[in-house]
Amino acid sequence: MSDARLPDRPVLAVDIGGTKLAAALVDPDGRVLADARVATPNPAVPDAGGLAAERLWRTLESLLGKLTADAGGPPLAGVGVGCGGPMAWPAARVSPLNIPAWRGFPLRARLRALYPGLPVRIHNDAICVAGGEHWRGAGRGYGNVLGVVVSTGVGGGLILGGRLVNGASGNAGHVGHVVVDPGGPPCACGGRGCLEAVARGPALVAWAREQGWRPDDPAATGVELAADARRGDPVAVAAMRRAGRAVGIALASTTHLCDLEVAALGGGLSQTGRLLFDPLEEAFRTHARLEFARRVEIVPAALGQTAGLVGAAALVLAQDRYWSAG
Amino acid sequence: MSDARLPDRPVLAVDIGGTKLAAALVDPDGRVLADARVATPNPAVPDAGGLAAERLWRTLESLLGKLTADAGGPPLAGVGVGCGGPMAWPAARVSPLNIPAWRGFPLRARLRALYPGLPVRIHNDAICVAGGEHWRGAGRGYGNVLGVVVSTGVGGGLILGGRLVNGASGNAGHVGHVVVDPGGPPCACGGRGCLEAVARGPALVAWAREQGWRPDDPAATGVELAADARRGDPVAVAAMRRAGRAVGIALASTTHLCDLEVAALGGGLSQTGRLLFDPLEEAFRTHARLEFARRVEIVPAALGQTAGLVGAAALVLAQDRYWSAG
Repeated sequence: MSDARLPDRPVLAVDIGGTKLAAALVDPDGRVLADARVATPNPAVPDAGGLAAERLWRTLESLLGKLTADAGGPPLAGVGVGCGGPMAWPAARVSPLNIPAWRGFPLRARLRALYPGLPVRIHNDAICVAGGEHWRGAGRGYGNVLGVVVSTGVGGGLILGGRLVNGASGNAGHVGHVVVDPGGPPCACGGRGCLEAVARGPALVAWAREQGWRPDDPAATGVELAADARRGDPVAVAAMRRAGRAVGIALASTTHLCDLEVAALGGGLSQTGRLLFDPLEEAFRTHARLEFARRVEIVPAALGQTAGLVGAAALVLAQDRYWSAG
Repeated sequence: MSDARLPDRPVLAVDIGGTKLAAALVDPDGRVLADARVATPNPAVPDAGGLAAERLWRTLESLLGKLTADAGGPPLAGVGVGCGGPMAWPAARVSPLNIPAWRGFPLRARLRALYPGLPVRIHNDAICVAGGEHWRGAGRGYGNVLGVVVSTGVGGGLILGGRLVNGASGNAGHVGHVVVDPGGPPCACGGRGCLEAVARGPALVAWAREQGWRPDDPAATGVELAADARRGDPVAVAAMRRAGRAVGIALASTTHLCDLEVAALGGGLSQTGRLLFDPLEEAFRTHARLEFARRVEIVPAALGQTAGLVGAAALVLAQDRYWSAG
C-alpha cells in the first residue's frame, strides 16, 4: 500500500515573502534535501485585471515544478506553506501586506488543484518560523516557546503545552503588536506604541536619522544600520538598544501571560548579537521578576533562513503539534 | 459498580483567600448545591512553630466537614480548589501572598489524605475564576477567552483552543504583570509598570490620595473609591479611568498575542460599570486595530462571587478542558 510509505516521503515546503519565493523538499526528520528560490515579481501597484496576481502564481508554480522535477519527481507527503499575513485561515485566502498583487488570493485552493490528493496546509510565515524553531531549532524539546522574527516587520508564533497556538482565527502570536510604549510612535496597524512600531528595521532607521545618523548610502536600511552598530557608530548602537529594550518589554509581558520556557529570536536584526541581546536581557530582567518568569531563556534562533521552510514542512510532517485545523 | 455513578456526584469546591475560606458542593452542571464560608484566620506574622499553618488547616478541615455533613455526606466526585498563588504546581505546595501562615504548605497532600481515593486538583484562584467563567459564565461557548480579576491584585487565566493554558509551571494567565507603562510605578513583583501596579485597588487609592481624594474614612479602600466614583467625585472617576486605560492596554497586548474572542472582567473594581468599561474600551480600541483584534468582546464576568468555586469544580468535572496535569 503506497500510504504505508508516506511517512518517508518529503514535504514540499514553501516560503512566500515580499522579496523572494523559496521552496524546499524537507524530509521527515526536518532536513532540507533540496531548495530553490526566486525574486518575487512584485509590482507596487497591481494591475486591475488580476494579471499581477496570476503572474506571481505562475512564477511560484514554475519554481515548485522545477524543484520537484530536478529532484526526480519524488512522491510527496504534502505541501506546507508559510506566507505573509494577513490571511483568512485555514482557508488561506492570502493578502500579504508586502505583496499587493495578492488580495484574497485563494492560495490553498490553487495548490490543492496543483497537487490533488495531497494535504496542503498554509500558515502565517512568522508562525512557520516559530514552528520550525520549536520542531528542529532553538526551542526543540521545550513545551512553551515564543518564536520572534525582528526584521522589516516584527512577527511571531506561540507554542504552548507542546502545540502551536492558533487562537480564534489563526492569528495568535502577533507579538509585534504587543504594546511596549502606550504613548509611543504610531504603528502601521493603526495602533500606537506596538513593539513593531518601535523595533522594526525601517522604524529604527527613521529614528536613527532623526538622531543624526548619516549613512553613506542615502537609501540605507536596517542592514546598514546594524552594520554601523557593529562598527561602533553611537547612534546605530543606540538604535539597537532601543530595539532591544522594546523586545525585552514585550517578552516580559508575553512570559507573564504564557509562562514560557524559551523565547527564540530570529530575523535580520537578531544578527547584531549582543548589541541587541544585552539591552534586551536588561529590559527583560527589569520587568520579569516573578520567579517563574526569571527562568525563561532568551536565545537566538538556530535555523536561520531555513526556519520558515522547516516550519512549513512541520505543518504536514508533525501535524499533531502544528496543525489543528481542517 | 459505584464508579458508574460518579458523573452524577457533586464536587467539593474550595476557594482559599486571605480574607475568607469558601466551600461549596457543585453538581455536574456547575450549579452550587450548598455553600459555606468562614473568615480566614490570618495573623500577619506566622508563629515560628507552624501553629498558624495548622490552625488555618483545621479551620478549613472543619468548614469542609460541616458543609458535607450538613448535605448528608454525599459521595463526592472529587475535590477542586482555587488558592492564592504562588504555588508549586501541580503538587500544590502553596504560599499564598496574602496568607503568611502558609509557606510551602502541602495543601494537595493534606486534602488527599483527608479524602482518600478521590481526585484532588488545585490551581491558582484567578485561573479558577477564568475557568468558571469559561465553563459556565461569560466565556461559555467560546474557544479563546481571557478571564481577568481586578481587585486587591490583578489576576487572570487563559483559555485557548477550548482548553485552560497552564504554561511551563502552571503560571500562565498572569495578565496583572503585562507591562502597560514601562516607566510606570514599581510593582510588588519587583518589576515596573505592570497592569497590577497601576490598576489594583490599593494602587488606585494611593494615586487618588496623591491627587487630592479625601475620603471620610481615613482607612478607605478601593471599595470606597469605587463608591465615590459612582457618586461623581472627579478624582475617583479619574482613578477608574486610569485603571480602565491600563486594563485596555493589557487586553490589547493579550489579544494580539493570543487571538482572543472574549475577555471577561471580574473582581470588585469591575462593578463600577461604565466608569471602568468606557475608558477600558477606548484604550482597547486605540491599541487593538488589526481586524482580528477588533472582533474581541470585552464583557463583565457573569458568575460573581461563585466563579472561583465553579471553576475549582471544573478542574474535576470537566477535566478534559481544565486539567492536564497528573
